[in-house]
Amino acid sequence: MNGDGVLDLGYARLDLDREARQGVPEIVYGPGKTREQIVGIAAALLDRSAGPVLVTRVAPQDAPAVLAQVPEGAYHADGRLLAWRPAPPTGFHVAVATAGTSDGPVAAEAEAVARVLGMTVTSVPDIGVAGLHRLLAEAERLRAADAVIVVAGMEGALASAVGGLVAAPVIAVPTSTGYGAALEGVTALLAMLTSCAAGITVVNIDSGFSAAMAAHRLAQVARKTP
Amino acid sequence: MNGDGVLDLGYARLDLDREARQGVPEIVYGPGKTREQIVGIAAALLDRSAGPVLVTRVAPQDAPAVLAQVPEGAYHADGRLLAWRPAPPTGFHVAVATAGTSDGPVAAEAEAVARVLGMTVTSVPDIGVAGLHRLLAEAERLRAADAVIVVAGMEGALASAVGGLVAAPVIAVPTSTGYGAALEGVTALLAMLTSCAAGITVVNIDSGFSAAMAAHRLAQVARKTP
Amino acid sequence: MNGDGVLDLGYARLDLDREARQGVPEIVYGPGKTREQIVGIAAALLDRSAGPVLVTRVAPQDAPAVLAQVPEGAYHADGRLLAWRPAPPTGFHVAVATAGTSDGPVAAEAEAVARVLGMTVTSVPDIGVAGLHRLLAEAERLRAADAVIVVAGMEGALASAVGGLVAAPVIAVPTSTGYGAALEGVTALLAMLTSCAAGITVVNIDSGFSAAMAAHRLAQVARKTP
Amino acid sequence: MNGDGVLDLGYARLDLDREARQGVPEIVYGPGKTREQIVGIAAALLDRSAGPVLVTRVAPQDAPAVLAQVPEGAYHADGRLLAWRPAPPTGFHVAVATAGTSDGPVAAEAEAVARVLGMTVTSVPDIGVAGLHRLLAEAERLRAADAVIVVAGMEGALASAVGGLVAAPVIAVPTSTGYGAALEGVTALLAMLTSCAAGITVVNIDSGFSAAMAAHRLAQVARKTP
Amino acid sequence: MNGDGVLDLGYARLDLDREARQGVPEIVYGPGKTREQIVGIAAALLDRSAGPVLVTRVAPQDAPAVLAQVPEGAYHADGRLLAWRPAPPTGFHVAVATAGTSDGPVAAEAEAVARVLGMTVTSVPDIGVAGLHRLLAEAERLRAADAVIVVAGMEGALASAVGGLVAAPVIAVPTSTGYGAALEGVTALLAMLTSCAAGITVVNIDSGFSAAMAAHRLAQVARKTP
Amino acid sequence: MNGDGVLDLGYARLDLDREARQGVPEIVYGPGKTREQIVGIAAALLDRSAGPVLVTRVAPQDAPAVLAQVPEGAYHADGRLLAWRPAPPTGFHVAVATAGTSDGPVAAEAEAVARVLGMTVTSVPDIGVAGLHRLLAEAERLRAADAVIVVAGMEGALASAVGGLVAAPVIAVPTSTGYGAALEGVTALLAMLTSCAAGITVVNIDSGFSAAMAAHRLAQVARKTP
Amino acid sequence: MNGDGVLDLGYARLDLDREARQGVPEIVYGPGKTREQIVGIAAALLDRSAGPVLVTRVAPQDAPAVLAQVPEGAYHADGRLLAWRPAPPTGFHVAVATAGTSDGPVAAEAEAVARVLGMTVTSVPDIGVAGLHRLLAEAERLRAADAVIVVAGMEGALASAVGGLVAAPVIAVPTSTGYGAALEGVTALLAMLTSCAAGITVVNIDSGFSAAMAAHRLAQVARKTP
Amino acid sequence: MNGDGVLDLGYARLDLDREARQGVPEIVYGPGKTREQIVGIAAALLDRSAGPVLVTRVAPQDAPAVLAQVPEGAYHADGRLLAWRPAPPTGFHVAVATAGTSDGPVAAEAEAVARVLGMTVTSVPDIGVAGLHRLLAEAERLRAADAVIVVAGMEGALASAVGGLVAAPVIAVPTSTGYGAALEGVTALLAMLTSCAAGITVVNIDSGFSAAMAAHRLAQVARKTP
Repeated sequence: MNGDGVLDLGYARLDLDREARQGVPEIVYGPGKTREQIVGIAAALLDRSAGPVLVTRVAPQDAPAVLAQVPEGAYHADGRLLAWRPAPPTGFHVAVATAGTSDGPVAAEAEAVARVLGMTVTSVPDIGVAGLHRLLAEAERLRAADAVIVVAGMEGALASAVGGLVAAPVIAVPTSTGYGAALEGVTALLAMLTSCAAGITVVNIDSGFSAAMAAHRLAQVARKTP
Repeated sequence: MNGDGVLDLGYARLDLDREARQGVPEIVYGPGKTREQIVGIAAALLDRSAGPVLVTRVAPQDAPAVLAQVPEGAYHADGRLLAWRPAPPTGFHVAVATAGTSDGPVAAEAEAVARVLGMTVTSVPDIGVAGLHRLLAEAERLRAADAVIVVAGMEGALASAVGGLVAAPVIAVPTSTGYGAALEGVTALLAMLTSCAAGITVVNIDSGFSAAMAAHRLAQVARKTP
Repeated sequence: MNGDGVLDLGYARLDLDREARQGVPEIVYGPGKTREQIVGIAAALLDRSAGPVLVTRVAPQDAPAVLAQVPEGAYHADGRLLAWRPAPPTGFHVAVATAGTSDGPVAAEAEAVARVLGMTVTSVPDIGVAGLHRLLAEAERLRAADAVIVVAGMEGALASAVGGLVAAPVIAVPTSTGYGAALEGVTALLAMLTSCAAGITVVNIDSGFSAAMAAHRLAQVARKTP
Repeated sequence: MNGDGVLDLGYARLDLDREARQGVPEIVYGPGKTREQIVGIAAALLDRSAGPVLVTRVAPQDAPAVLAQVPEGAYHADGRLLAWRPAPPTGFHVAVATAGTSDGPVAAEAEAVARVLGMTVTSVPDIGVAGLHRLLAEAERLRAADAVIVVAGMEGALASAVGGLVAAPVIAVPTSTGYGAALEGVTALLAMLTSCAAGITVVNIDSGFSAAMAAHRLAQVARKTP
Repeated sequence: MNGDGVLDLGYARLDLDREARQGVPEIVYGPGKTREQIVGIAAALLDRSAGPVLVTRVAPQDAPAVLAQVPEGAYHADGRLLAWRPAPPTGFHVAVATAGTSDGPVAAEAEAVARVLGMTVTSVPDIGVAGLHRLLAEAERLRAADAVIVVAGMEGALASAVGGLVAAPVIAVPTSTGYGAALEGVTALLAMLTSCAAGITVVNIDSGFSAAMAAHRLAQVARKTP
Repeated sequence: MNGDGVLDLGYARLDLDREARQGVPEIVYGPGKTREQIVGIAAALLDRSAGPVLVTRVAPQDAPAVLAQVPEGAYHADGRLLAWRPAPPTGFHVAVATAGTSDGPVAAEAEAVARVLGMTVTSVPDIGVAGLHRLLAEAERLRAADAVIVVAGMEGALASAVGGLVAAPVIAVPTSTGYGAALEGVTALLAMLTSCAAGITVVNIDSGFSAAMAAHRLAQVARKTP
Repeated sequence: MNGDGVLDLGYARLDLDREARQGVPEIVYGPGKTREQIVGIAAALLDRSAGPVLVTRVAPQDAPAVLAQVPEGAYHADGRLLAWRPAPPTGFHVAVATAGTSDGPVAAEAEAVARVLGMTVTSVPDIGVAGLHRLLAEAERLRAADAVIVVAGMEGALASAVGGLVAAPVIAVPTSTGYGAALEGVTALLAMLTSCAAGITVVNIDSGFSAAMAAHRLAQVARKTP
Repeated sequence: MNGDGVLDLGYARLDLDREARQGVPEIVYGPGKTREQIVGIAAALLDRSAGPVLVTRVAPQDAPAVLAQVPEGAYHADGRLLAWRPAPPTGFHVAVATAGTSDGPVAAEAEAVARVLGMTVTSVPDIGVAGLHRLLAEAERLRAADAVIVVAGMEGALASAVGGLVAAPVIAVPTSTGYGAALEGVTALLAMLTSCAAGITVVNIDSGFSAAMAAHRLAQVARKTP
């Protein structure tokens, strides 16, 4: 570790200041890293920080080997998340809605990350706008949340419909669900960005992780403002 | 006129067979034609056919001069349509819904063409999904129609919502309403093509005319099948 | 089942009202679902609805296992469709034309879905515009249909040529046939949307299912209007 | 007004329920509306709601005529905003940073809307990453805010840099500043969506309005959570 | 003039060898050049070469002034071409077909350039595929030509249809005719490149000039091969 | 075979008129066809036509089985072409140039098809513009040809350089050689379409077949014109 | 001026450290700034720095008014550059080549900026690859330079050809010259990025300024290394 | 070998003049070449030139076989580079910075090529802008270099930040790191081209090789200028 709050592991340079700056230690993106590298990074972060340690997008076949070497962690299979030292509950409540069952894995990543960061999560799956009564039947549960994450592919219309129903922050996650003109999620992305419901915000395609982190930022401001 | 059902005016080659093949004479696209050419084509079509004669996208300043030389026509200003010899009512009923007021001119073109071709038109403007109760309040009027034309820009979500509410054919018209990521209508176009509501069909951006012509094809099959 | 006409299976939320709203129960998109989920959904729909039950895009190796558990169904291999309780013939007649043999699988999906929904189907394969006499030789068969589905990849020109020959509704399905500048179907999609033949409508790339559903909507209006 | 909380002015259908649903009356998008229509809508909203009334993107030459007929309003020239009955201060504090002076008009729209909705605004202009010390010198002012709106065109790198410095929610607004490969804001949009700083959210190109509305949603959750 | 067959006029560097290499002197692209520059270049080319001298895309208001200073030229208004010293007839015969009247100006450029280069031109306008009998009625005239230039916008389907009818070289020119999904000619361009008719070649959008030059190359090989 | 010059094999509809219309029987695109279908089509074409029969893009492992059942054919492995009854030499001479060795397979397809259709072929590989002297050293061989096919990926600059050196027709074939900004051949395609060398024509990405067919059309006009 | 080397003029925040960091004071982009703002910024930079002061893209009608208030400057009309206190000659020699006369204005900007920054500039205009002998005739002049800026639109092939001829750094500037498939410079940009000549670098479309600044960075390293 | 400095190996045409023109023999791109071809080319280049011989993008499993036949070479595994006869140190110093660990392989290629060409390389990995202090802590090491290669995917912001910190030439390499809106490196490419830091240059996506070659061109000018 050098004097700048940086720990150089050779294969990675950990930003140890991040916990102080942003309320959570650096979160590790799993793909492209070996099991050994994941073990090394997780162990170092557990050693040098106090908060939750997360590794995202870990394949099921890799999780046990890592957990065997870095104990007291858990693998959240649906969300493909490895996590240690989950945060205590913050009372911040996020609802995660999906348009269809194919959007499930992205939602699962958002939910797993949010839970490990201390949020309370309500799942509201499969309420796409082709059957509006399904959505309307869930309106109260959505309105009860402090923030709503909307996960949808294809034309992404659920984000606009939810945006018009709730007053809370809406974080829209386009997914690569669909084919042809869905353009691997670009259509949903563009549609969410041009939503007729004012004040919706958008993150990258398939990034349940980004949505959960955006909610984490919200949770911090909610806690801070009296 | 040659033996092939084609009338060569020098500046245009009229397809005189089209009325027999498709139930309406060739319809004239106004832009790029001089007033004199429009006069010549309209007069020739009135002379060589029996049905309605239409010229689309005619600027308000050009209409009076044409009507002065080809009498008994009318200019439908909202839809920028010049028309002579409107078809008698067919009993076919089309509803034209828009997401917002900016979509109005495209809807007006669809409505004007549909009326001249003998359809009964119900306008259902400004029912975008940011306020779902506006849409739900109009559900019965939409369900009463034989076909629904949905005109929407930005993210085009109205097409999916209407598609889920009605059993009739839905013809979606993306518009160039919006800015930035709306990409001059391409976003709405892609979104409508990937709608989660099954069996929606789509026409070109801003083409109220195409939607009305698609409805005209529907009206013919509706009339024909017992 | 809750009071909103929704059946929550845990892994899916079935829209039981859809049959009343749209004349056919919710149709299931197979990809991404396990055999067990397909079995569960199909059984539930058969139990709670009266009309045909369809699961699209089912791989040949998955069909027998599902049929073994949910009897009295059939697998339409060309169209990769699992179906139970086909609708009685409605008398609505749809022609399905392709530009070339590579477009066959998409046409097969459209045909299989249309037949299960009670339509009479005429196949008109391999009539691309590079040999116009092949198309002209089939003009009468195309004109005899209540609606024409045109399936074409590459430059998609068949849609325009058919659109000029028939008065009936034309539903164009772009396919991902071709390479290079065909851009996996985007070129055919754009070309069909800008067709010089008025009133053609378009559905998503490779979506034979969407075309059949659009024809189903037509069939309903045809039946309804006197 | 009908029973659904909708007021039909003929040229617009006002969603009167929105104030109850979302904490602020429907906000009017000025372009494409005549002065008379703006007068009519503003007067109706002032009459039927209790909160602030805003009309965005109003040209300077149109503002006086509207204000003359609908008194007690104000024109915020930099942000091209007409507003009546501004909200009382909520104590929610938003910082608005720009990368360069060309991003100023978009920031001005965000600031004007935010102020009218009761937020306290700190402007932090011209801190693009080509001179990092300018940004670092402002880090404390940025950290003091409850949320940060980052407005940047060209490569949009400021969003990532700010995202790494603050723990609060970051709302990134790409602008159409730049030429050539800036692709009228699409490059900044894509860059912000793929930011290496976790949890940044993005709104449409040049939409200062959307950013302010997203902040308004944040302010509501901040107020609500104890 | 230097020893390399290059004449440097200060504002342009003329490639005097081109006539020997390619059978026609360098052809001048008018836009962006002043009348004085056009006069200077045309005079120099007339002085230093033996063949036809052409300046393309010259506005009608600029032509008389140039012709007054460089006599014995002619302005071909439809094709916006200034030309001096036209080539004697070569006997090479090119047909120029258009899909619609909006494609006329691009065809006119192709025709004017082809005629000045000594080709015999047959115009076959307005034979788009929406009325196939118009095309079939002209099949013999198209087959009589040594090469066919097909000029079409929107979906560009005429190129495929002509390509299947004739054995001669087909040079397809996409035009920017159309709107929305026509993408200013890109759709026609892509469609022509993926034509199902084998051996069609394509030039740039709206470039009647390029098509005529491609025909000129053909004429040379036709003349050369015994 | 029906009366329209069409032979319906069930799995394909052969256009038997094509030989009369275009000087060569229909050419078969191999991918997506079974060995049995290729055998059936090839046998039928050999039976019902007089000229060469070609099947393109046949994998090496499929060729022997087909040749065993349809004798007297040959497999041109480099060009992945199966062919029977090659045309006698026509005396038409085509040069095929490539920019680099990676462009070889596309050039090989062009060469194989051209040879079977009776053309004399000169290969001029690996003369990309990064070493202009390699190109200049081959200028005479290129000039000796009746037509030049230029095969190049990446930035495709070779087409422009050759276009400036020869007077004959130039058919440019963009290839998918390269990575990143080469966009799988789209960059070379666009570059060739905007070449500064006048009169170059372009075919689809990686389509050596299309280039050879375009040359075949040239060969016919060359033969026909005296 | 605050303690961070930043001068806040209200309408701009000047980075006064930049001269120390990068060898030249901050350079001002003119568009979007009033004459008064340009005067203020230029005067401030002249006051607080020692090196050359430049304002780019200044319209001819604006230059005299600025020069009247900030004396001892000069307007370089071809390059639309206002400059004060030009750097003394550094001995670094840059050649600026263009493909055609339409690329002239972009080259002029590069040349003007380079000269004011102390570089010696050789102009080599109009040497596009359609006439390779023009390029080869200039090869020695290009090789004599320490760096070569290549300015080209359309297909941008000149960059590859020059890149193969010289050993020095090549900075390629794509221009928006051309139409249709030139896509306003995107085609040239992509082509230059995929050049077959190794080690070419690229800057933004039409940015003569960026090329000159890249050359300035080169000049500094050339001066520094012994 | 012919008289033009070209060696024709049948499967490749080596440009033997390149060493004289550009200071290094032709560098071989490995993919698509057999081991035998690589052996043949490497042996020929070693025989006919004096400088370093490099083959890029060689898979680990292919390297030993080549080295066994062409001795005295080395395989640089991280950079996938085979090299013989490395250049003596030139004293030119290049720093290679990455934004994250996923950018490592591209940086490794740049570093390996640079070292074989005689440059001194400093690696500065994992300094992305989400933790600016990591970058600032390395500023002096970056400033000490004669040129900086910045390797970054996702939004590519590191290039702008480094560009503002150093006066030396900056060569930006976008990588395909990231997903969704990262568009396989296109987003980073566009962002780097529109950087707010003046004078940054850009090479193709993932092309560490191009960056090293651009640095090699710089090294030559640095050496040459006194």
